[in-house]
Amino acid sequence: MYKKIKSKIFKIIEPAEKADISSLIFDGFIISLIILNVLAIILESYQVLSDKYYSYFRLFEIISVTIFTIEYLLRLWTADLKFIKENKIISRLLYLITPLAIIDLLAILPFYLPLIIPFDLRFLRILRLIRIFRLFKIQRYSKSLKLITKVLNDKKEELFVTVFITFLLLLIASTIMFYIEHDVQPENFPNIFSSFWWAVATLTTVGYGDIYPITGWGKFLSGIIALLGIGLVALPTGIISSGFMKEIHKNKKKECKCPKCGSIFIEEE
Amino acid sequence: MYKKIKSKIFKIIEPAEKADISSLIFDGFIISLIILNVLAIILESYQVLSDKYYSYFRLFEIISVTIFTIEYLLRLWTADLKFIKENKIISRLLYLITPLAIIDLLAILPFYLPLIIPFDLRFLRILRLIRIFRLFKIQRYSKSLKLITKVLNDKKEELFVTVFITFLLLLIASTIMFYIEHDVQPENFPNIFSSFWWAVATLTTVGYGDIYPITGWGKFLSGIIALLGIGLVALPTGIISSGFMKEIHKNKKKECKCPKCGSIFIEEE
Amino acid sequence: MYKKIKSKIFKIIEPAEKADISSLIFDGFIISLIILNVLAIILESYQVLSDKYYSYFRLFEIISVTIFTIEYLLRLWTADLKFIKENKIISRLLYLITPLAIIDLLAILPFYLPLIIPFDLRFLRILRLIRIFRLFKIQRYSKSLKLITKVLNDKKEELFVTVFITFLLLLIASTIMFYIEHDVQPENFPNIFSSFWWAVATLTTVGYGDIYPITGWGKFLSGIIALLGIGLVALPTGIISSGFMKEIHKNKKKECKCPKCGSIFIEEE
Amino acid sequence: MYKKIKSKIFKIIEPAEKADISSLIFDGFIISLIILNVLAIILESYQVLSDKYYSYFRLFEIISVTIFTIEYLLRLWTADLKFIKENKIISRLLYLITPLAIIDLLAILPFYLPLIIPFDLRFLRILRLIRIFRLFKIQRYSKSLKLITKVLNDKKEELFVTVFITFLLLLIASTIMFYIEHDVQPENFPNIFSSFWWAVATLTTVGYGDIYPITGWGKFLSGIIALLGIGLVALPTGIISSGFMKEIHKNKKKECKCPKCGSIFIEEE
Repeated sequence: MYKKIKSKIFKIIEPAEKADISSLIFDGFIISLIILNVLAIILESYQVLSDKYYSYFRLFEIISVTIFTIEYLLRLWTADLKFIKENKIISRLLYLITPLAIIDLLAILPFYLPLIIPFDLRFLRILRLIRIFRLFKIQRYSKSLKLITKVLNDKKEELFVTVFITFLLLLIASTIMFYIEHDVQPENFPNIFSSFWWAVATLTTVGYGDIYPITGWGKFLSGIIALLGIGLVALPTGIISSGFMKEIHKNKKKECKCPKCGSIFIEEE
Repeated sequence: MYKKIKSKIFKIIEPAEKADISSLIFDGFIISLIILNVLAIILESYQVLSDKYYSYFRLFEIISVTIFTIEYLLRLWTADLKFIKENKIISRLLYLITPLAIIDLLAILPFYLPLIIPFDLRFLRILRLIRIFRLFKIQRYSKSLKLITKVLNDKKEELFVTVFITFLLLLIASTIMFYIEHDVQPENFPNIFSSFWWAVATLTTVGYGDIYPITGWGKFLSGIIALLGIGLVALPTGIISSGFMKEIHKNKKKECKCPKCGSIFIEEE
Repeated sequence: MYKKIKSKIFKIIEPAEKADISSLIFDGFIISLIILNVLAIILESYQVLSDKYYSYFRLFEIISVTIFTIEYLLRLWTADLKFIKENKIISRLLYLITPLAIIDLLAILPFYLPLIIPFDLRFLRILRLIRIFRLFKIQRYSKSLKLITKVLNDKKEELFVTVFITFLLLLIASTIMFYIEHDVQPENFPNIFSSFWWAVATLTTVGYGDIYPITGWGKFLSGIIALLGIGLVALPTGIISSGFMKEIHKNKKKECKCPKCGSIFIEEE
Repeated sequence: MYKKIKSKIFKIIEPAEKADISSLIFDGFIISLIILNVLAIILESYQVLSDKYYSYFRLFEIISVTIFTIEYLLRLWTADLKFIKENKIISRLLYLITPLAIIDLLAILPFYLPLIIPFDLRFLRILRLIRIFRLFKIQRYSKSLKLITKVLNDKKEELFVTVFITFLLLLIASTIMFYIEHDVQPENFPNIFSSFWWAVATLTTVGYGDIYPITGWGKFLSGIIALLGIGLVALPTGIISSGFMKEIHKNKKKECKCPKCGSIFIEEE
């Protein structure tokens, strides 16, 4: 009986399979609640609304956190049906350290934390948004998300090297720029951190315009960094393009000829 | 007799086939009228010209709308020659909901609406411009447009996932940024919507410079978003590149000539 | 004798083949002169230098134009050795309308024009720079330049369609933006041309920051345009990438099997 | 005995092979020292810290340079084990001109130079950062770095042509812009160098907003340059994408199993 209820709850809170109506309703409810939460966070950021409807926002937050907490505990309770191990505590610990479980925890934690620590961690509530990714599991976009994830995963080393080179380039450029511009405009380039901020804005071609070189050499260096920024776009794009191409090619069929017996057959790649 | 006239009109208003002079003239006339309309809209936006030549602009608008309305009605009338159904009303309703018919309607509607509702929907007139796409039907650019449309269509799921991830990223970044910067510069980050505006300008690397972080953590987050913006370019570019590659590979049929027996055959790759 | 001299001059002024020393010297001389001309144009733009060394700049310009004019006339004279036609005048007219000849003419014309028309066309002098492209003819970069030109040429229809769609998008966005922002900030959005300037700066993600929306709807539209700007990068990049890939694939070899005699052979693609 | 010590030192200072603990410790120590150096450079850029802890920064710099100098001399001393030539002096000279040795020298030189020349070359210290690239030699990222380097090297001619065309385009655009805008805003466009700065900021779509056209023709030219900037991204991206694709295709060897005779063989694509 206990097992049956547990198994039923597990089925409901897992992403809905086709024709599993109770699970579909549960998914729809949680997703609606997430969207309402995000709306509440956005509306609450308006000082006027926040002051006027403070008690409503607070009430909605309490209700939301209560529901999310119950859901979190239910998932933890049924975790042994997901990670089938001999020891039930191990399977629950395994669940606790999955990325989705950590996000779930982070999304409700800021509510309980103020009781303990004084920092304002309310912004963590926005992490509830990430939970929407669960949605992809049950939709036709799942394949696309998997493909994108696969390509990024396959190419993660090349991409990491690109990020690392970018980081070195930023550090070198910002140090040199600091030595060039600091004497002329010490208020804009007071230290290398500010200079780094300029380097990021230039290399990524954002160019807010709050900080830019005014000396000849500074402009020269800035121009080179901006042009390298083009290369910075080209490199990961090339890497990712080739990754997508590889995945597409994988599904191609090919005619093979056996060098031993001479028979010709179709090999799926 | 009635049918013959209808059939003739249908031929004229449809995009011109080769050597169909009356249709070519009609196309040329409509396109010229569209270009003149666009010019009129641009010129009218200059206060000086708008004041001075108000009556001329008004007259030209009345003439244009009259012509476009007649054309719209003719297309509706002959719609049963395009969508051949048993019931003529159904074929006309089918025509009414085609994207091009909706654009045609939107482009003339603002003229009639002020008589009913008080909003200023004159900007809808610019939609007449979209009608120029009809042009592509009869030109050598048709193949290119089709290829681009096909690639975008093939990859629409991957692109949608990219847009969705981008949207989540923007929402999360703008919420965190609001909590970081709101206290320091409440005039620039009064609410999450303003913060979202910053996030879009940064992720797309536009960087107008009207709103940017000034705290250390804000700059840190901004730098990360700007660098992720590079990835945001790389992802759809990779997806679209692979889409174009796939299309090219598809069409690779090739004429081979056997060096032994001299026979010529088509090899599909 | 006359023919011999002409043939000799033709050889000299044509891009140098290997081991043709007199031609190499001529090329080197012309290129040095072009670079000196560009330097002179840049230096002359400094008011201080322009005032102080006016006569020197003028003298250098006279000498340069004299040399370029002589070179131009020599090329015209020997044009019948390049375009071998029955009629020598036709071969010279053919030369006159080649792009390089037009650039050569435009680069010297501004010197003679002030004697006739009063406009300041001195900026045309910078076109001398384009002549440096002749250089590529004789270098190992020639293959790369040809490849790039070929890819751009192969894909010119797709690229044109992209440019056309971009242009329509810019026109529509700037008209709508004008109607949204004109009333709130008439000084920044006085007409659709100004609005177009904003649209270009946003879609290309330049974002100078001299003009940007301040209303909610304006920011909404701006965000969409900026995000579409990402797509605007992705589309031509994908097109050009696939063009380069096609060229690389072309050189691949492939095993073919004749369906008639069954023999297997290597086909170069 | 002398040879043995030398060989041992060589092994230690070379990038660590697996299970070579003394070499691993040495690598870890040098890398930690480099990171501490970079931190010191950044912290020293804060005027407050620089003033307060001047003597500590100076002491740390002396210690660092001493260690780097000893390391440099050891590498020079053991260079004949790396470049095995008949003459030991030649092998050491060969080492001296390797890029990594030059960077090593540049990174310690600024310390000794002030004793001789008066320029402030302290920013060269940041070059110590580049030494971190040695790290890649011993890690799984080595393959990725090699691939990226290979692709960039393979395509260097195409990329150079792109850079060259970009440079010509920048020069031509900035000259024309100078003639357009100089009269209207001489303070922002005082000479072609300033105009070049604008051209770079526009073509790379950085758009700081410190300098931009205000005349109609200036905006027109600026829009064209910004749109060409899109092409400037597309071109190298396409080139690099095709380079990555080529490398991937190259390595496509595949194990096939004949369904008839069961023999396994390698198929190169």
